[in-house]
Amino acid sequence: MSALAALLSVDWGTTSLRVYLLTADGGVLDEREAPLGIMNIAGGAFAAALHDACRPWLERHGPLPALLSGMIGSRQGWIEAPYLPCPVALDELGRHLTPITVPDFGPIRVAPGVTARDRDGVPDVMRGEECQIVGALALMAIDGGTFLLPGTHSKTVTVAQGRIIGFHTCMTGELFAALRTHTILGRLMGAASGDGSGFARGVDAARGLQGAGQLLHAIFAARTLRLFDELAEDEAADYLSGLLIGAELGGIAAGDGELILIGSADLADRYRRAARRLGIATRDAPAACVRAGHLALATQAGLVRR
Amino acid sequence: MSALAALLSVDWGTTSLRVYLLTADGGVLDEREAPLGIMNIAGGAFAAALHDACRPWLERHGPLPALLSGMIGSRQGWIEAPYLPCPVALDELGRHLTPITVPDFGPIRVAPGVTARDRDGVPDVMRGEECQIVGALALMAIDGGTFLLPGTHSKTVTVAQGRIIGFHTCMTGELFAALRTHTILGRLMGAASGDGSGFARGVDAARGLQGAGQLLHAIFAARTLRLFDELAEDEAADYLSGLLIGAELGGIAAGDGELILIGSADLADRYRRAARRLGIATRDAPAACVRAGHLALATQAGLVRR
Repeated sequence: MSALAALLSVDWGTTSLRVYLLTADGGVLDEREAPLGIMNIAGGAFAAALHDACRPWLERHGPLPALLSGMIGSRQGWIEAPYLPCPVALDELGRHLTPITVPDFGPIRVAPGVTARDRDGVPDVMRGEECQIVGALALMAIDGGTFLLPGTHSKTVTVAQGRIIGFHTCMTGELFAALRTHTILGRLMGAASGDGSGFARGVDAARGLQGAGQLLHAIFAARTLRLFDELAEDEAADYLSGLLIGAELGGIAAGDGELILIGSADLADRYRRAARRLGIATRDAPAACVRAGHLALATQAGLVRR
Repeated sequence: MSALAALLSVDWGTTSLRVYLLTADGGVLDEREAPLGIMNIAGGAFAAALHDACRPWLERHGPLPALLSGMIGSRQGWIEAPYLPCPVALDELGRHLTPITVPDFGPIRVAPGVTARDRDGVPDVMRGEECQIVGALALMAIDGGTFLLPGTHSKTVTVAQGRIIGFHTCMTGELFAALRTHTILGRLMGAASGDGSGFARGVDAARGLQGAGQLLHAIFAARTLRLFDELAEDEAADYLSGLLIGAELGGIAAGDGELILIGSADLADRYRRAARRLGIATRDAPAACVRAGHLALATQAGLVRR
């Protein structure tokens, strides 16, 4: 039975669409990826895009249920799946899925996002990462920890006893890209093809930063060190990367316990190296957290029977 | 005698060229401005651009001396005018001018830039601001203070007994522009046409920031507050501006005495408002610091006789 197709796991973000054909015990029968993120879908043609991505599987296996997460559930996506406020028990997510009906598919459900408020009442949001957390807990057989999901908008998430207690976003990835591509820092910066020494220097420079304003100054070193030939052209981008990741991790260093990294291999590797340099213990979540999260929510919602 | 043309004061930066026709006591007989910054001059045609800008004055007054400052003296400019290292007595600047010869002009001199090293040995640079400092001291009849020159690359400069002791650059202006134009923060951000309440909120949000990494998080509020309609569309850009300027000033708050603001009226006004909110006393330098600095250096170098 377990080799039968049971669920379409759909990770649908701003820039890409990834679909997995899963068995009821999480095996991957097939997978497809397309650069069809929500920003690239014209005229709201989301149903057609999903149909195109899954067509051979639907033809072969009939109408399958689908679990969607990511920016597809945002106001700019297919349908707005409301946010659940923190603290939120992770099994509540499966009770708050937003339904969509599309011919040829079984039941389609969109995962909710999660919101948090900091002590000043400023809101924060995640959408998609909550499924990765659900999957990580399931795959690692744990019910809590501090998770870091690197990315364009990096998330640090505190989970205890199966509840997301709180989280905060850092714009580390997007800030790096904007500084490199759209400021003077990029002018003297070559491809990041060096030996990684620039990354380590950047992390070390972040260690000494005290206040928020110092970051506004520290990033300028990616230019001045180049002006004085004190940083190689192929290390400058890595220096800036190390500085920003180090600054982000510096805010976490006070926490206790190990940091669980969830994310793409290359980016997680940068965070792992920076954390080691800053004396922060890390542990890697398995690679397949998103689809494990989709399967857990779909099972909980009765779309899949194990 | 004092109404006679005595000096061409040339403020030549990355994006614009400003020339003033000065008398020996600093009076402005005429002025011109063109969008002919060093990035807009093709094929190194700096002499032709300066000639075009000053032609009517040269025809009327004959060969006049010229004092140039700004990015025109950088490696990407007309001629590289070497940096002087901090601490540097301001009257040393006038002894280290770099000469250029151009037909129809009198002696042309380019002001040197200034470098500093922080306690970790990381270099910093200024080019052009040193002339504004010289001018501010002359016009205000003082020999020291803490100066802040807002801009794309904001500079905070410590001067004592006529010497630049040290300074540091914050990329506040360029970071604001990059975040607004090239990240997701700009998507929900309208023109900054509100009542200024967003700016005050941004400054207040900066006040609570502890570490460098917190800035990576805090800027995201310019999006999340908009997502939840807790910040008006026409206040969002001002919120981000207040946050960044507040973060920059937060690093200065520990200093004692008043902060002397040198710069364009609108930008200096933002810094003044933010400083007041953070309890930092400010004082405005006169508007004409650059040309007063040029006149002081030219006089010291014997190009102008008073």
